[in-house]
Amino acid sequence: MKNRKVYISGDLVPDSEAKISIYDSAVLLGDTVTESTRTFNYKPFKLIEHVDRLYKSLKLTRIDPGMTKDEMIEVSENLLAVNKETYGDNEDCWLVHNISRGLSITGGNPTLQVSKATIMIYTQPMILLPWAKFYKEGCHAVTPSSRVIPSQSLDPRLKNRSRLFYTLGEMEAKLVDPDAQSIMLDIHGNVAENKGGNIFIVRDGKLITPTTANCLEGLTRATTIEVAKSLNIEVIEAVIQPYDLSTADELFMTSTPYSIMPATKYNGLTIADGKVGPITKKLLQGWSDRVGLDIVKQAEDQLHIH
Amino acid sequence: MKNRKVYISGDLVPDSEAKISIYDSAVLLGDTVTESTRTFNYKPFKLIEHVDRLYKSLKLTRIDPGMTKDEMIEVSENLLAVNKETYGDNEDCWLVHNISRGLSITGGNPTLQVSKATIMIYTQPMILLPWAKFYKEGCHAVTPSSRVIPSQSLDPRLKNRSRLFYTLGEMEAKLVDPDAQSIMLDIHGNVAENKGGNIFIVRDGKLITPTTANCLEGLTRATTIEVAKSLNIEVIEAVIQPYDLSTADELFMTSTPYSIMPATKYNGLTIADGKVGPITKKLLQGWSDRVGLDIVKQAEDQLHIH
Amino acid sequence: MKNRKVYISGDLVPDSEAKISIYDSAVLLGDTVTESTRTFNYKPFKLIEHVDRLYKSLKLTRIDPGMTKDEMIEVSENLLAVNKETYGDNEDCWLVHNISRGLSITGGNPTLQVSKATIMIYTQPMILLPWAKFYKEGCHAVTPSSRVIPSQSLDPRLKNRSRLFYTLGEMEAKLVDPDAQSIMLDIHGNVAENKGGNIFIVRDGKLITPTTANCLEGLTRATTIEVAKSLNIEVIEAVIQPYDLSTADELFMTSTPYSIMPATKYNGLTIADGKVGPITKKLLQGWSDRVGLDIVKQAEDQLHIH
Amino acid sequence: MKNRKVYISGDLVPDSEAKISIYDSAVLLGDTVTESTRTFNYKPFKLIEHVDRLYKSLKLTRIDPGMTKDEMIEVSENLLAVNKETYGDNEDCWLVHNISRGLSITGGNPTLQVSKATIMIYTQPMILLPWAKFYKEGCHAVTPSSRVIPSQSLDPRLKNRSRLFYTLGEMEAKLVDPDAQSIMLDIHGNVAENKGGNIFIVRDGKLITPTTANCLEGLTRATTIEVAKSLNIEVIEAVIQPYDLSTADELFMTSTPYSIMPATKYNGLTIADGKVGPITKKLLQGWSDRVGLDIVKQAEDQLHIH
Amino acid sequence: MKNRKVYISGDLVPDSEAKISIYDSAVLLGDTVTESTRTFNYKPFKLIEHVDRLYKSLKLTRIDPGMTKDEMIEVSENLLAVNKETYGDNEDCWLVHNISRGLSITGGNPTLQVSKATIMIYTQPMILLPWAKFYKEGCHAVTPSSRVIPSQSLDPRLKNRSRLFYTLGEMEAKLVDPDAQSIMLDIHGNVAENKGGNIFIVRDGKLITPTTANCLEGLTRATTIEVAKSLNIEVIEAVIQPYDLSTADELFMTSTPYSIMPATKYNGLTIADGKVGPITKKLLQGWSDRVGLDIVKQAEDQLHIH
Amino acid sequence: MKNRKVYISGDLVPDSEAKISIYDSAVLLGDTVTESTRTFNYKPFKLIEHVDRLYKSLKLTRIDPGMTKDEMIEVSENLLAVNKETYGDNEDCWLVHNISRGLSITGGNPTLQVSKATIMIYTQPMILLPWAKFYKEGCHAVTPSSRVIPSQSLDPRLKNRSRLFYTLGEMEAKLVDPDAQSIMLDIHGNVAENKGGNIFIVRDGKLITPTTANCLEGLTRATTIEVAKSLNIEVIEAVIQPYDLSTADELFMTSTPYSIMPATKYNGLTIADGKVGPITKKLLQGWSDRVGLDIVKQAEDQLHIH
Repeated sequence: MKNRKVYISGDLVPDSEAKISIYDSAVLLGDTVTESTRTFNYKPFKLIEHVDRLYKSLKLTRIDPGMTKDEMIEVSENLLAVNKETYGDNEDCWLVHNISRGLSITGGNPTLQVSKATIMIYTQPMILLPWAKFYKEGCHAVTPSSRVIPSQSLDPRLKNRSRLFYTLGEMEAKLVDPDAQSIMLDIHGNVAENKGGNIFIVRDGKLITPTTANCLEGLTRATTIEVAKSLNIEVIEAVIQPYDLSTADELFMTSTPYSIMPATKYNGLTIADGKVGPITKKLLQGWSDRVGLDIVKQAEDQLHIH
Repeated sequence: MKNRKVYISGDLVPDSEAKISIYDSAVLLGDTVTESTRTFNYKPFKLIEHVDRLYKSLKLTRIDPGMTKDEMIEVSENLLAVNKETYGDNEDCWLVHNISRGLSITGGNPTLQVSKATIMIYTQPMILLPWAKFYKEGCHAVTPSSRVIPSQSLDPRLKNRSRLFYTLGEMEAKLVDPDAQSIMLDIHGNVAENKGGNIFIVRDGKLITPTTANCLEGLTRATTIEVAKSLNIEVIEAVIQPYDLSTADELFMTSTPYSIMPATKYNGLTIADGKVGPITKKLLQGWSDRVGLDIVKQAEDQLHIH
Repeated sequence: MKNRKVYISGDLVPDSEAKISIYDSAVLLGDTVTESTRTFNYKPFKLIEHVDRLYKSLKLTRIDPGMTKDEMIEVSENLLAVNKETYGDNEDCWLVHNISRGLSITGGNPTLQVSKATIMIYTQPMILLPWAKFYKEGCHAVTPSSRVIPSQSLDPRLKNRSRLFYTLGEMEAKLVDPDAQSIMLDIHGNVAENKGGNIFIVRDGKLITPTTANCLEGLTRATTIEVAKSLNIEVIEAVIQPYDLSTADELFMTSTPYSIMPATKYNGLTIADGKVGPITKKLLQGWSDRVGLDIVKQAEDQLHIH
Repeated sequence: MKNRKVYISGDLVPDSEAKISIYDSAVLLGDTVTESTRTFNYKPFKLIEHVDRLYKSLKLTRIDPGMTKDEMIEVSENLLAVNKETYGDNEDCWLVHNISRGLSITGGNPTLQVSKATIMIYTQPMILLPWAKFYKEGCHAVTPSSRVIPSQSLDPRLKNRSRLFYTLGEMEAKLVDPDAQSIMLDIHGNVAENKGGNIFIVRDGKLITPTTANCLEGLTRATTIEVAKSLNIEVIEAVIQPYDLSTADELFMTSTPYSIMPATKYNGLTIADGKVGPITKKLLQGWSDRVGLDIVKQAEDQLHIH
Repeated sequence: MKNRKVYISGDLVPDSEAKISIYDSAVLLGDTVTESTRTFNYKPFKLIEHVDRLYKSLKLTRIDPGMTKDEMIEVSENLLAVNKETYGDNEDCWLVHNISRGLSITGGNPTLQVSKATIMIYTQPMILLPWAKFYKEGCHAVTPSSRVIPSQSLDPRLKNRSRLFYTLGEMEAKLVDPDAQSIMLDIHGNVAENKGGNIFIVRDGKLITPTTANCLEGLTRATTIEVAKSLNIEVIEAVIQPYDLSTADELFMTSTPYSIMPATKYNGLTIADGKVGPITKKLLQGWSDRVGLDIVKQAEDQLHIH
Repeated sequence: MKNRKVYISGDLVPDSEAKISIYDSAVLLGDTVTESTRTFNYKPFKLIEHVDRLYKSLKLTRIDPGMTKDEMIEVSENLLAVNKETYGDNEDCWLVHNISRGLSITGGNPTLQVSKATIMIYTQPMILLPWAKFYKEGCHAVTPSSRVIPSQSLDPRLKNRSRLFYTLGEMEAKLVDPDAQSIMLDIHGNVAENKGGNIFIVRDGKLITPTTANCLEGLTRATTIEVAKSLNIEVIEAVIQPYDLSTADELFMTSTPYSIMPATKYNGLTIADGKVGPITKKLLQGWSDRVGLDIVKQAEDQLHIH
């Protein structure tokens, strides 16, 4: 592993020394808000939008980060610059922000921020291997029996690291197929989200995706909608259910690392003819055009190296 | 702070050096199971039961701790022995276990345990200050509008550290009164739990508490039921609702640090005559008898010191 | 108090003598449908629409008012004329209709109308003091834990006087802040309504308000939408949740007395920069233009008098 | 109508003059708590329990009645004494308490009690005609599609006069049969209550009734359980559903006026052999023994008079 | 009965001999998918769309019909041709497809198709008598207390023959009126569907119908929307509730046999003025124009014959 | 296949000729009630109880079978006698009753029984092969994402043949493991039932099973409870959730063919030590004692033959 730097609450420390106290509220309470931005051509994509959303999450959790949005952007860009040399010429990276309320006092009032927030910012190589083959083949999407946390318990739009339910749901999906990607339902049985990603279907040439009443308000989701509109593809936000997934013309997920991940199987059933569909391909091409980089090629190149 | 030791994945390190990587799944995914045991007279109370429950949580999260229950008990007792000298003669402590799936690979499969589990065990002084005055006065319990996570999303009995919803609920309760202790409802409007604690009412001489279909299966809850039975107080598990709290004869919470915390106000309404009730007092005395230590006195002594 | 007249089932009686039997179904069963119309420049605003909605409520409750819509409008306008002299030159008033099924027979069949309906129509000075300061400062909106009655129990669009749940919800909100105005959720955790009012947010220049599947179909809501459209502000009806309120650019409520009441705080969190926002101000101005009267000035004038 | 007296906020006034302002919160907000006690042999049955429950309702609605429980009992008994002469020798009566928050100020804060509470206490002849024939024949119970208000919106145990949903549900049931008595379900489809009454079934010799998590905690329900136990009939509180009603051996309702009302038909299906069952009869006899009066005879005598 | 032929798994057999084994999964498990197409002028209407939907249902139930869509269409059209002589000149017919998984093995794995699918295709005279009078008078729509099966249990869009809940709901509606047509709600109390049909209202000149999140995605529904659009009538898909039905300007249902069936009463309340409304009439005329046949006349002619 | 007889609506016909019209409401509407009784030593077990329950289902579906319970028992026993010769000396059989409303008229009123009910009674060899190995090894229980139909849509206690949702849920479970047996949850996420069977766990020596509020009221369930009580094993009816299954000491299902089927894996997790537990074994032995036949041996013998 190359010697990347990590920003921790004001300091730049080597990757291997990037540690926090086991008494941090990040560890004790899952009390961490987060954003994951990726670069294209080593430029952070929609960094301002990610930081805006980060500050919404900070507001709702009443964590004081001790710095302004502009300062947050500045240290983020600085970190990217510092770590530039650790990435190859055509390599991209994640830029991840994790901010916790800082030290937690056992037996104390967990709602009070008794120290400075713990600000963790790091970059990581854009490993796309887990998804690379899915651009051509499509993945197998599976719905587990457990359901996403309802908004009245914890709003999915508040991006946070209390994510155990995601891991448990994903485990259940992988009982069906070790390569499966979960599509979780909400407590009413409506399609909600993939762990950290959004769900889209194509039906009769239109793109349909759940409203954000039960899922993450993904920036990749928003970009996909922008791309679709620029290609004159109609986009509808609506309640969708497993029936819609099984009978869709095309199905895909969106998330920061892979942008768009096609699915060609759902709960063991082949989607349409089992091939990645034409609108999914158009959107992938539109994404590539938008970010100035062949998204699919970048991922597939990793298949050959590794 | 005295120089206590912490057990981290096989090593005993000083408190101040007890750190984990920011890439640990504890930090990135709230993917940590946990138990908090307390000592009475510096003997861990129901340690075997806590470790049993810990291994249930490990099983459900499919985390391999890399050690048996007996080994877990052994290192725990050893840690208590090592840290003994840092506590005063009559001092008690928490013994906390936090176990995560270990390092998380960004872009990797979060359901695979790719390294050894991160085992964090530490002791901390039994700070009872936040609750000490409530033994005599009772606290003010308040119900926030947000609801506990339903079992079909994440079972509360699986003790874990993805606890952001608890903190947000507690914050909401504290808008009413900075000293308020939250009592959260489930999504059907039934009384569920206090963050990490259980709820009991007394009505017509009987103790009533929710079944564990919507809340933590607390060991303190279980001990309170045992104590009640030993005192010939009938205990009923039933669905209870805010109406039952407001009109109860007595109301209290149970949790590891304080055992029993009386509440004399609920949502601004005085419970009965506003004094800690006779059955609550009997149960506190029963607890003290059971553990061989005056629970109330221990807590109140801290009021005088600090 | 000036000597205003009240219309009761055909008679005009002085305010102080406006009484009904304690055996009226209004008292015994909350079996009363209602409308509240206000005047601008002493002209009733959308009286026909209010009476239309009143007759929908009468239909659903199967109360026979014993008079036609036209007769209802006529006696209402007549009452306004009779009471005109009791109001100052620039004073406005409420015009309230309450219609119950009439006398209730204890032990009788509550679904049968055994006597003439009790028709209560009265006017009251347009006291705006409770809200006057909020036009400039914004109010503090708070969400209580109790939820609005679901449509399958009693549709909120059927305007009625069985309103105890509103009062209890409002009491809970006022535990946080004595001046708080409640925003209640429905049983799924979605934003529903303020007691007798509707909720709007502004996001990215667009106005968003819940559909009427879980709240009153307010005429003030409808007028606000009309005003917005006349100002080329896009209006979207959608499911919204507490997250949307906390992160909104602007937040306000609508109801007959105050038309639009800005909120600048929600559950203790400041909305945007804590000031009444530009779109809210434009809508208030649009309302004033529409009704030919400076709504804000009218309310604020009361601050100086009282 | 004989010249009975009514107690209104300190005064005894003739029945015909028992009126309240149309601005009372009873009329404007359904903001009234209530109890209905009946006499047996002109002695009020369980008056203390009724007044206890009344004060629970007052507490929850934060209405200050301005008098103690003892004073409430005293004025109630005094009213019974005053009205004694208006009842025949063997006549019984209702004793009804309705207490509202008093005058409501339009545009004011509905949660503040700005005047003295309005205390209405009256007696009424024990008209049992609507139910008299059902003791022998049984009634037809029908379930409407609308559902009782869930506890998280307004707890049914808080006895109040915001009862419009009861009337609407009853109307729906009477579409099936003009003599039908409604049995309403809760929002989960479980049996809840009859408007103001509780539901019991007999299965295999045992009495089964819903827990009070979704219905009124009836004093007649409690007395019926006491009577059953005194007769060595086992009583179970459990979730019951329409299937249980249709397939029950016996079905009845309990409420203050009629004590026990047998049902021999449910949604058009005959219960068992269509006759009032042996356990229902035993319970009716037990009730009569308990109150020292033949309940059935008293009701049926009214059939002959009228 | 004329000697019509039925297609059963490859054979054409006379109507009276069209039988299947009592061990067929159609009988034992309700494991049958289905479509009902009708002819206009003896031409099957939207047969391709019906067959497309049939194959969606086959896919979801994982039944292999053993023939392609084209073959299905061919045998269907052939059957229509063969049976042509059994219908009069102006007579139309149903064309019904029922396909089960074939023989079921008691004690076997019900998810395995152990034999060829049972393919039942038949035609039947287009008996419109039950609805004929409703075109002019409108029917009485009634909502039963039981609710449609939620999508998370069995999606209504998967057209199948496990329809007992429809029959039970319809029975409940007919308790109110033997001619009633049921309108069932979903478990949240929103309007869902008529047994096998969809629901529309007209409000302020616009057509409103539930989204297909809780009901059948009817082809007659789709055609009605097409007809409406061709007539410049705005169509909105939205959540609707019983309040909307009672207060609608017009109300009707859509289903294959009758196309559009007006309702002029709902739960005993008259819809608007109790007459079939102008937009309903326009749509009926639009339908007739679309299919080249006077739909109403065809039905009413049957009134005179029979 | 031996030449067994089948009873169809009064006639005894050979197995291979046991057919019903494709127009039967069994085929068209899943409108069939059912019971499955098995023999032990060729004596039908609890036949009276099964017929009693059958008549409850007939009552609720308002199907008139045209024969009394006694007649039903008589023809059933006669059929067993007639078919006796087709079974070997130690062979047992199912006795299945399926009763539909008879012929269905397309376009007719599905709630009217226009012909005689179709009464299908047949016997079948007691094939236990699918489960035989599970007595020793235990099966793998898996929970699918789809949920059982809620009682308010169709009560599971009304035993019927509209069972498509069971098949779809079972298919989903078999995606995880082709031998998996489904355990379905209700719409609240609580454990409900196996397709046609009930679920039990053992915890701390006690037997726990869901109440029948969300599942079939199985006669095998009842017998298992009786057997447990006779062995002094405490039985508790309670809400249970997937957490309870994963952490149970023992887990099994009950249904007519196999009586008790142990599960040693749940959603891929091993139950306890992965062996069939001691209480399960005791109950199996108790069952064998009760019915006078070694249940396990009978099943395992089939493994050797086949």
